Amino acid sequence: MNSFGRIFRIHILGESHGRMVGVLIDGCPAGMPLDEKDFLPDLNRRRPGAAGTTPRKDNDTPAMASGVFNGKTTGAPLLVSFENRDVRPDDYARFMEIPRPGHADFVALKKFGGHADYRGGGHFSGRLTLGLVAAGVVAKKLMPELRIAARLTEAGGQKNIDAAVKNALEKNDSIGGVVECRVAGLPVGLGEPFFDSLESVISHIMFSIPAVKGIEFGSGFAATRMKGSEHNDPIVSPDGTTQTNHAGGINGGLSNGNELVLRLAVKPTSSTAQVQETLSLKTGKPAELKIEGRHDTCIALRVPVVAEAALAVALADMFMLSGLIPPVWTHENRKNTK
Amino acid sequence: MNSFGRIFRIHILGESHGRMVGVLIDGCPAGMPLDEKDFLPDLNRRRPGAAGTTPRKDNDTPAMASGVFNGKTTGAPLLVSFENRDVRPDDYARFMEIPRPGHADFVALKKFGGHADYRGGGHFSGRLTLGLVAAGVVAKKLMPELRIAARLTEAGGQKNIDAAVKNALEKNDSIGGVVECRVAGLPVGLGEPFFDSLESVISHIMFSIPAVKGIEFGSGFAATRMKGSEHNDPIVSPDGTTQTNHAGGINGGLSNGNELVLRLAVKPTSSTAQVQETLSLKTGKPAELKIEGRHDTCIALRVPVVAEAALAVALADMFMLSGLIPPVWTHENRKNTK
Amino acid sequence: MNSFGRIFRIHILGESHGRMVGVLIDGCPAGMPLDEKDFLPDLNRRRPGAAGTTPRKDNDTPAMASGVFNGKTTGAPLLVSFENRDVRPDDYARFMEIPRPGHADFVALKKFGGHADYRGGGHFSGRLTLGLVAAGVVAKKLMPELRIAARLTEAGGQKNIDAAVKNALEKNDSIGGVVECRVAGLPVGLGEPFFDSLESVISHIMFSIPAVKGIEFGSGFAATRMKGSEHNDPIVSPDGTTQTNHAGGINGGLSNGNELVLRLAVKPTSSTAQVQETLSLKTGKPAELKIEGRHDTCIALRVPVVAEAALAVALADMFMLSGLIPPVWTHENRKNTK
Amino acid sequence: MNSFGRIFRIHILGESHGRMVGVLIDGCPAGMPLDEKDFLPDLNRRRPGAAGTTPRKDNDTPAMASGVFNGKTTGAPLLVSFENRDVRPDDYARFMEIPRPGHADFVALKKFGGHADYRGGGHFSGRLTLGLVAAGVVAKKLMPELRIAARLTEAGGQKNIDAAVKNALEKNDSIGGVVECRVAGLPVGLGEPFFDSLESVISHIMFSIPAVKGIEFGSGFAATRMKGSEHNDPIVSPDGTTQTNHAGGINGGLSNGNELVLRLAVKPTSSTAQVQETLSLKTGKPAELKIEGRHDTCIALRVPVVAEAALAVALADMFMLSGLIPPVWTHENRKNTK
Repeated sequence: MNSFGRIFRIHILGESHGRMVGVLIDGCPAGMPLDEKDFLPDLNRRRPGAAGTTPRKDNDTPAMASGVFNGKTTGAPLLVSFENRDVRPDDYARFMEIPRPGHADFVALKKFGGHADYRGGGHFSGRLTLGLVAAGVVAKKLMPELRIAARLTEAGGQKNIDAAVKNALEKNDSIGGVVECRVAGLPVGLGEPFFDSLESVISHIMFSIPAVKGIEFGSGFAATRMKGSEHNDPIVSPDGTTQTNHAGGINGGLSNGNELVLRLAVKPTSSTAQVQETLSLKTGKPAELKIEGRHDTCIALRVPVVAEAALAVALADMFMLSGLIPPVWTHENRKNTK
Repeated sequence: MNSFGRIFRIHILGESHGRMVGVLIDGCPAGMPLDEKDFLPDLNRRRPGAAGTTPRKDNDTPAMASGVFNGKTTGAPLLVSFENRDVRPDDYARFMEIPRPGHADFVALKKFGGHADYRGGGHFSGRLTLGLVAAGVVAKKLMPELRIAARLTEAGGQKNIDAAVKNALEKNDSIGGVVECRVAGLPVGLGEPFFDSLESVISHIMFSIPAVKGIEFGSGFAATRMKGSEHNDPIVSPDGTTQTNHAGGINGGLSNGNELVLRLAVKPTSSTAQVQETLSLKTGKPAELKIEGRHDTCIALRVPVVAEAALAVALADMFMLSGLIPPVWTHENRKNTK
Repeated sequence: MNSFGRIFRIHILGESHGRMVGVLIDGCPAGMPLDEKDFLPDLNRRRPGAAGTTPRKDNDTPAMASGVFNGKTTGAPLLVSFENRDVRPDDYARFMEIPRPGHADFVALKKFGGHADYRGGGHFSGRLTLGLVAAGVVAKKLMPELRIAARLTEAGGQKNIDAAVKNALEKNDSIGGVVECRVAGLPVGLGEPFFDSLESVISHIMFSIPAVKGIEFGSGFAATRMKGSEHNDPIVSPDGTTQTNHAGGINGGLSNGNELVLRLAVKPTSSTAQVQETLSLKTGKPAELKIEGRHDTCIALRVPVVAEAALAVALADMFMLSGLIPPVWTHENRKNTK
Repeated sequence: MNSFGRIFRIHILGESHGRMVGVLIDGCPAGMPLDEKDFLPDLNRRRPGAAGTTPRKDNDTPAMASGVFNGKTTGAPLLVSFENRDVRPDDYARFMEIPRPGHADFVALKKFGGHADYRGGGHFSGRLTLGLVAAGVVAKKLMPELRIAARLTEAGGQKNIDAAVKNALEKNDSIGGVVECRVAGLPVGLGEPFFDSLESVISHIMFSIPAVKGIEFGSGFAATRMKGSEHNDPIVSPDGTTQTNHAGGINGGLSNGNELVLRLAVKPTSSTAQVQETLSLKTGKPAELKIEGRHDTCIALRVPVVAEAALAVALADMFMLSGLIPPVWTHENRKNTK
């Protein structure tokens, strides 16, 4: 349930305001150089602080507690963990009585019989994506031939993202956005019929990112308004290159050698500074709720690096299933791989 | 790879123009009445024949070869198979040299080294969804409290589906469409953090349906253009009922007791009656291709019953993971279940 | 539950007196020549008929219904099935009231709420091993470099097996035996810490063979009576060859390059021609039972080929996990493999 | 690979002389009281110190870093970790050149291309069983109705264990032993045909315990020397109680309601204080080796608590698969459970 992957397998753990969050990575080939510094660029991209993101100021320093020796992966499970420091548990206790709309408060209460750690969303918190980003760093290093890039292309329905965020901040409201991911350098044939199509596997992990409510590949929903004669991508080269890329790099569930293109719909942050209507589970009557805690005006701003990580994790497992990453990693066997 | 589910597990098999297609269902509780006639209504809904669908005329009669005894499931694996009869293998041999745009011909050729059964798409064929529909029938019977319904809400970008199909037929072209699925009667709390959110599991199986290129839950991509204050669904009842349902019945990856709502983007059928540009792998030069074989003008017309089946299979597994369907099924333990 | 393996995955199905028994094999590389005739030698070894085996006379002809095209595997799931013909269902109905000692009658009745197919043991029958033998044939072909051999080394505690069987037949009783399996040609390093040691994976599949009640690797139980100085196998060559082989070819759960050696304890056939004491579930009182049905005096006689198959299936999956069998099989990439 | 279980899933991590060892437990029901003190009795039973065990003196204090809140499990993954303190890495570097007979040195070197953490056996060390013992404590608490007990019944082939150990110590040699496990209180019907028989699942996890080289259920290897008329256990009560228990509580791979009985063969400790013959991988020539490090004269002395833990973990998963432990644990729903 908290695990993803068949060979390159990751296990997410921790709570937002408990001792730590992190990821346990199993199935990583031995011999790949890995240093705690390798995690910093992507962790910094995920870090809050910009306009529109939460002012929470945890020190997101990764610690590798196992699976690395003499600066290289050993083939044994790799635990990457992050201590929680900037913890303010008292912000959250009341949400068990007055659940926040759009959050997991109500469903977690019911599913876990009142025993879930409710502080800061507990195990449902966006902070859990730290582990995903860390796993993504490892996955990216395993596939140096890939160029994986995600960016926010729209916020609140606008291409001018700064203006949209500024506007939402002024209105004490929140907005969503669209994140586009592209991967160049993929081989032909990744994906496994019938149930592990590349779209199946990628969408599975993408929907584990909090606030993602939609995904489309290539032309996606726009394809439903196209004719077949427009949508089909003519093949123009024996390596499978197509003239257009409406398929987003995937035919029949398998990578076709063209750029992988997908877009994620990210809903507006559920927490806003406005007074919201909800229900008091104690009284059974309507209640008003104002969330004072820290939160992101546009959580979509922080999704791209998480989406890249999720994508890299899914692809690393597909690479390993296809025998493209040997159990012992070397610079030699991983170069010129396409 | 051809398996889906953790407890209620299904395995898809067969080829479009081989001996058979079918599904092997493992983990089905014992004691549920099941007759070959139970499959017919959904199989008939999937059957081609209407305007806009292929004229292929297979006799889609299900045969249960194991797992049923005295009219009830036994708890052992259940094989439901369909013989292939209307087989015209000669239609397809040339596509290994001149791959059809939009189809899996090229990727299958590369992935399986030329050994895949290419006839009619082989294991990639839409005919494989017969097994999925059969599994869906079993899954639906396991959860009589659910009302699962899917329908085509748009074709070629229009709400007037008949007109859109007629127009495409006249132009010898194909169109896509949007399929909406709704499920009423779900309990609160289905879905498993972190990686098996309800959205993750459902999208995983939905993308195994050929031609699906996008999925969105609740407001989906429209949510990216909404404010948080608009999008959040106020809770209005202690059972979790919300005033609006922008979340599509899912918060934090778990069912919240409201109607589950999702939409699928179905691309236009790749095969059209028009001449298409592609490449001859034999000569390495551009080639023109006219596909004479039988095909659907709007494959999306046949997706709703398949989408219902996929959804039912995913939900049945989630029900079993949550202990909601006991290993021995009775009318008594499965009524009044919400 | 009815599935085994992570990449080379097999699914067992069918009932002893239903329509068929068989196996669905997923994850088999494309391109391996495979003909129904390939199955005959091992199926003949499993066939009853010799002294001490049941006189049941099914025609064990394999049918491949999917996954093979033009004489080679396609990479899609491969169904191998066997029709049941020599079916006498009336022999078995009474065992639901008067369960046979040593058989699964009682436990199946309780587990499946009376819905299991009880005829001939149903899904618990030894006839299900036909599917296992068929999967073993495919697995063996995938690893031509291995020499896998199993034989009955003891029956009823004696090395002279013919005499032991003759004696048991005369007494209308049944006997068990010890089956030894050896595999030469294994590479160093098969097996995955912590939970998928070679012993773990092999014992898992071996205990699915009906009547197996024990397994030991190398010196096994005899090792408990040895000193460490006797038991340790000195390494004598850089390829890992050891002077002795008390470890049975496995150290730390991984193959060490020496011959794999294991032994199975097979209990005496539960059905005997003698009157047995049991309980009538109808009356709740003791009852006597005489089993008239066909059965094996020494089921262990038929275990070697099944044990070889189980071993081959487990090893094929380990080979694939280690990247030793590529997704497209060729004679070239599978020769000189050690 | 480092994971075990389908619903109650555990993941083992860490290295003997790295920062820590531990276990990540997923799928544990919410609401079960759990305190770090709960681990101490079994951890103390595992602790070295008695005659015949290693003098290594780590402080085996468990830390729960996630998955527990207000003294109860939350339903989120539970990390139990143990810091390594008494670390002497320099003892081990030379074993990469001169591999120790009977140890994983050689196979680990080959499998992981020289990158495995070799210190103290690294991820292959018996110290990893700390995580298994911790998981066993949680599993045992989930099933209060069971009485699980393991004990060493033979060492070096003798029933007088103290004398056998004393004798081995005097000779600077090591000995093995037989560990017997018994479980009372099991329901009828645990185990899943065809591949997840109770014997399959239990043997799988038992062989992950270092030094285990054999397992037998009930009469096991002795059954191979019995007649069927002797071995069959007559049923004497409608609850399935049998007069004898040669089956060890399992028929047809399913628990039959009688006591579960199994025995493990534990080989002599590979490290002894004697000079041993092996090979220098550097020179390619024979070499003598004297292991100065700390080790157990009879590792079997410390196996019983580990075997109990492994058994409890396997059974907890089987209980959950059968719906016997609900997702929210309460004293009420877990009492009077048989």
